[in-house]
Amino acid sequence: MSTQPQERDRYVALSGGVGGAKLSLGMAHLLGERLTIVVNTGDDFEHLGLHISPDVDTAIYTLAGVVNPVTGWGRRDETWTFMAALQRLGGQAWFKLGDADLATHVERTRRLRAGETLTSITAHLAQSFGVKSRILPMCDEPLRTVVETDQGPLAFQDYFVRAQCRPIVRTVRFDGAESAQPSPQVRAALSDSALAGIIVCPSNPWLSVDPILAVPGLREAIRASGAPVIAVSPIIAGNAVKGPTAKIMRELDLQPGAASIAQHYAGLIDGFLIDSEDCALADTIAMPVRAARTLMHSLDDKVGLARECLDFCAALKLARGREARATGVPS
Amino acid sequence: MSTQPQERDRYVALSGGVGGAKLSLGMAHLLGERLTIVVNTGDDFEHLGLHISPDVDTAIYTLAGVVNPVTGWGRRDETWTFMAALQRLGGQAWFKLGDADLATHVERTRRLRAGETLTSITAHLAQSFGVKSRILPMCDEPLRTVVETDQGPLAFQDYFVRAQCRPIVRTVRFDGAESAQPSPQVRAALSDSALAGIIVCPSNPWLSVDPILAVPGLREAIRASGAPVIAVSPIIAGNAVKGPTAKIMRELDLQPGAASIAQHYAGLIDGFLIDSEDCALADTIAMPVRAARTLMHSLDDKVGLARECLDFCAALKLARGREARATGVPS
Repeated sequence: MSTQPQERDRYVALSGGVGGAKLSLGMAHLLGERLTIVVNTGDDFEHLGLHISPDVDTAIYTLAGVVNPVTGWGRRDETWTFMAALQRLGGQAWFKLGDADLATHVERTRRLRAGETLTSITAHLAQSFGVKSRILPMCDEPLRTVVETDQGPLAFQDYFVRAQCRPIVRTVRFDGAESAQPSPQVRAALSDSALAGIIVCPSNPWLSVDPILAVPGLREAIRASGAPVIAVSPIIAGNAVKGPTAKIMRELDLQPGAASIAQHYAGLIDGFLIDSEDCALADTIAMPVRAARTLMHSLDDKVGLARECLDFCAALKLARGREARATGVPS
Repeated sequence: MSTQPQERDRYVALSGGVGGAKLSLGMAHLLGERLTIVVNTGDDFEHLGLHISPDVDTAIYTLAGVVNPVTGWGRRDETWTFMAALQRLGGQAWFKLGDADLATHVERTRRLRAGETLTSITAHLAQSFGVKSRILPMCDEPLRTVVETDQGPLAFQDYFVRAQCRPIVRTVRFDGAESAQPSPQVRAALSDSALAGIIVCPSNPWLSVDPILAVPGLREAIRASGAPVIAVSPIIAGNAVKGPTAKIMRELDLQPGAASIAQHYAGLIDGFLIDSEDCALADTIAMPVRAARTLMHSLDDKVGLARECLDFCAALKLARGREARATGVPS
């Protein structure tokens, strides 16, 4: 029996911004429309009267091949005339909005005001960009990530962009979580009988994945799916590939390393994929571990890591089947 | 006694879009902060979730020297990345919004939602652009020009931009006029003791000036000012310099010509300035008439016509003084 993904197998990825979008792109190359990406919207905010969904846009732009390859967010071949003009009018310029990017925010905001759901708008945008995989906001209700810091509570973008992650993180909370629920589309993706694996992308667990898991019922729906759940470590040799993950871990009194990340996801995941550099840590992690190259520079890197993820899911399923046969429990 | 404008004399212009802004620029060169321009906002509309004030922006951009010299509206050195991106998303692209221009609309909309008046926002924008003359929206309340046509009632921009003035005009109405009033700033400008003249710019009388005059109390405030009121004909030899003025006049069963325009303004104005080409018509107009070159291509043209306007106001005032002395009525 092979561990190769089957033609009808479907997969769900949970993703934050840049790192998650990179792995999603790799998976999209292998799976096309058989991939559903559930994207963090805890970073969403109202700015200049526009509804901005940074992680959703990063997913769309990355999968559409129009993302800025230098920053990993925003659009390539962008112009900045709006921003320069706004600055001259004394407008708020701390959050950079390119001219083409702005079209996405204006169109999304217009449709939201007209009563469309974020899920439906995201589907329209992704389709306009020719994206085959399904990109789903984690929920349609506002759930806002608030970072409690030594300088008081900060809305996510105030912490992340305006304060450039400098404040010391005490804890992270998710305002509005109690009123949120997985959208019908997210529920359907997680209860699909062809679901062969759920991949938690190498995004920041506290800032990017926890908001997804904070949607009431979503964690339960993941477990109830019966599909193998794996996470990819966003930490290599104690350092974050990008962003403040390691800094936040230290501030939360955690050892910045793959083991702490695995611990954070305990009870949710069945297997943990670490970087080859961290091979020696495998024994310290109390679950199945696979090591692979997790740095993703080229498209080949992304597709390669995606293949490892799908293969790991298949291997976990196979092992579960063997175990069930050994113990007489039906798989 | 000279007819030259005095150093303390103040003037008010009533203006629509491109033509009015050109004459306003000429007057601004002569008067600086002694000029107040009361601008039509009947063309204002909500588009893509943004509040757009086309005539106010044309006034600001023209006086700031950043207007697109080819179109007469929008900004010079503009980029169009937003519009192209919006079009690819299936967004509404019939109203052209340049990237720099967009900053004006976003900032205005944000401030309006925060509770600022259009007057205060316009002052801020004009100041940001270094405009010395005062640009005042005719009122802060929404007063919307609706064109009743053979194809039914059309919101102004639907008639003017989307349908490119093709429908046949039956009449023009001003929705919301009953709830509008001249702003305190417009009232103050019209009751200023230094007011030496009011100039109705060569804008479309039905579409651009009538909305201003439809603000309850504004026509009365103009008459009560006691200052000479003149209008500049937007028609030369039966043709409009720009836009659908002549076409609309024919549709309203009016002879397209300076005499019909003067007739339209009867009771409001004390003098009418026609183009030199229309000299022969002077006798058909039942009020003081002055002829001058009204085509404004160069800045010199604009300043020249502005000088004629100020001079005409001064002459009317002087004549009124003479008349009063002759009849014993105090001037």
